[in-house]
Amino acid sequence: MTVSFSIIKEDARTGARAGVLHTLRGDVETPVFMPVGTQATVKTMTPQEVWDLGGRLILSNTYHLYLRPGPDLIQEAGGLHRFMGWDGPILTDSGGFQVFSLAPLRRIEEDGVWFRSHIDGSEHFFSPEKAVAVQEALGSDIAMAFDQCAPYPCTYEEAREAMERTSRWALRCKEARRREDQALFGIVQGGVHRDLREKSVNDLVALDFPGYGIGGLSVGEPKDIMYQVLDYTVPLLPREKPRYLMGVGSPDCLLEGVARGVDMFDCVLPTRIARNGTVFTREGKLVVRNAEYARDFRPLDPDCNCYACRHFTRAYIRHLIKANEVLGIRLTTIHNLHFVLELMRSIRRAILEGNFYEYKEAFLARWNKN
Amino acid sequence: MTVSFSIIKEDARTGARAGVLHTLRGDVETPVFMPVGTQATVKTMTPQEVWDLGGRLILSNTYHLYLRPGPDLIQEAGGLHRFMGWDGPILTDSGGFQVFSLAPLRRIEEDGVWFRSHIDGSEHFFSPEKAVAVQEALGSDIAMAFDQCAPYPCTYEEAREAMERTSRWALRCKEARRREDQALFGIVQGGVHRDLREKSVNDLVALDFPGYGIGGLSVGEPKDIMYQVLDYTVPLLPREKPRYLMGVGSPDCLLEGVARGVDMFDCVLPTRIARNGTVFTREGKLVVRNAEYARDFRPLDPDCNCYACRHFTRAYIRHLIKANEVLGIRLTTIHNLHFVLELMRSIRRAILEGNFYEYKEAFLARWNKN
Ligand SMILES: [Zn+2]
Ligand SMILES: [Zn+2]
Repeated sequence: MTVSFSIIKEDARTGARAGVLHTLRGDVETPVFMPVGTQATVKTMTPQEVWDLGGRLILSNTYHLYLRPGPDLIQEAGGLHRFMGWDGPILTDSGGFQVFSLAPLRRIEEDGVWFRSHIDGSEHFFSPEKAVAVQEALGSDIAMAFDQCAPYPCTYEEAREAMERTSRWALRCKEARRREDQALFGIVQGGVHRDLREKSVNDLVALDFPGYGIGGLSVGEPKDIMYQVLDYTVPLLPREKPRYLMGVGSPDCLLEGVARGVDMFDCVLPTRIARNGTVFTREGKLVVRNAEYARDFRPLDPDCNCYACRHFTRAYIRHLIKANEVLGIRLTTIHNLHFVLELMRSIRRAILEGNFYEYKEAFLARWNKN
Repeated sequence: MTVSFSIIKEDARTGARAGVLHTLRGDVETPVFMPVGTQATVKTMTPQEVWDLGGRLILSNTYHLYLRPGPDLIQEAGGLHRFMGWDGPILTDSGGFQVFSLAPLRRIEEDGVWFRSHIDGSEHFFSPEKAVAVQEALGSDIAMAFDQCAPYPCTYEEAREAMERTSRWALRCKEARRREDQALFGIVQGGVHRDLREKSVNDLVALDFPGYGIGGLSVGEPKDIMYQVLDYTVPLLPREKPRYLMGVGSPDCLLEGVARGVDMFDCVLPTRIARNGTVFTREGKLVVRNAEYARDFRPLDPDCNCYACRHFTRAYIRHLIKANEVLGIRLTTIHNLHFVLELMRSIRRAILEGNFYEYKEAFLARWNKN
């Protein structure tokens, strides 16, 4: 088994669990947030910086790397880890979400999806077998099955078709696997429909994956809808397998996801809003590029201990961002990633100490204060 | 005296000297290259990274900081050092060069220069007194006198007028000084005319500055013309004062400048070409963004020991640059700054060991090989 999972402690009042994901490239404590390195780099950061912030498992995007620089080149470089200089474990998504959300002119067939590159317009075809082959060329530690992600909102029929195709494709992905050193996780679909989610979980659990992604959420639906779907979906998943909520990364959603039994998360949100000059603080988001911070000589978050907050003021970081200086978005990225990774560490500690519920309530009360 | 200079060793075969520039914020070994932090940041780098590469004295631009975020804000922040988190010494230029090269619609009067901001078109006036006041608000360790830099080419009359005005302005700068903890260097002008350079040196040396900038070079003239001007200008400057060749930073020019008795240099070149995907190697420049490096899995420079060269390949860095990933220009910037700062350390060592001439010839032979 290339990836296995141990549960260390289960919370008494919520569905939260603290665990360890064992990979061939090291253990990862859960609940875990995976920084996103879309194009073989966590934007603005060196691998060393990601590691120093406590990033232990990163996500990279199959769709982007397939288009540029291409899986052949990365294979020739010795695989994605060597190419990008990251020695820890890597999870790759299947490309499905990007094909269905980013690429123009897609045509879905039972065999796979035709789409055009968002970079140069060239035409490409992705199938379950192709998604597995590309991820095997990249050499990630955890690959994801190729899924069809239905948009939100969509009709019940659309959600059903996408879910059923995802189940058929999951089987094909499993049969296409060749590498023994890469784990393959299945992805649950079914939109916001309880019966479809149940059917999806049944289909996938029958294939006995070593872990399960929960897809089709965080695609535009209200948060309480997402929480409802988690409420009835997560308990259906096998207790002993890791559960991965895809595309979730705002602090409140991380807490609510953990409370519902999710072990793994990824999201571009912390790094993307950082590049727009928005940072997390204990009291909610702060748009540091706003004029009101021009002469604010406090750190981004007075309660934060990151490199940015120990050395620089809001006024300086705002100046950098207004002047289009790269250091500005480096500092906001460091801060936001530190914030989320530190949150995950605190969550895990609270679960182990048996006070996760209290921690969550206190965090959310302060987060929602303004 | 806020800044003083000690000569440790003079080279027997060339004009090179190894020295120490003593400042209130620490000693700086010379010959020294100053990384440029135009907008209160060395582009893409943290202060810690600049320090770790061996940067000991940095340059910041009065013109840019005057326009954004403004000297009042920086003064309120506790001065430029605190604002940008750099504890070492800082030299600020006078703004003269930028006013005469960057700002549109300038009108030169004896009292000063009217110009428009390149950012928002607003009108501003800079005089010798204003240039000193702004630099005192910034709180740099070394300020530069406000000079008029004539373009290349220009008529003899233009060069003469700019030089004579620079001398009159130098006196006004000296008289305008208020801060005791800031040194003021004069700037020699005179274009490419020997008699004008002699007159300029005489005027400035009569004012007894603690250091002298050599301005009006590296403004488009051929390199051998610049070397000629240095050949007859530098020996006129007082031996015991530091000499600063403004705007020079290519490895060959650094070596030739040192050989002619220059102690200090600054230039945006290493960091600017890095952002365009060009790096220094022992064998000359290499445009790593070119297609020929797509599958080149060697480091930028196999003889380099910098963070970029120890961990990443040309293929990876090219991918990052093609994909507009910030890490790409961070790595090329780290490499180029390391290259130049390491070159300066090697130059100093060679001077101290008495083999600077041989070192220079060997370096240039390899540099010019291709
Ligand atoms: Zn912080
Ligand atoms: Zn290097």
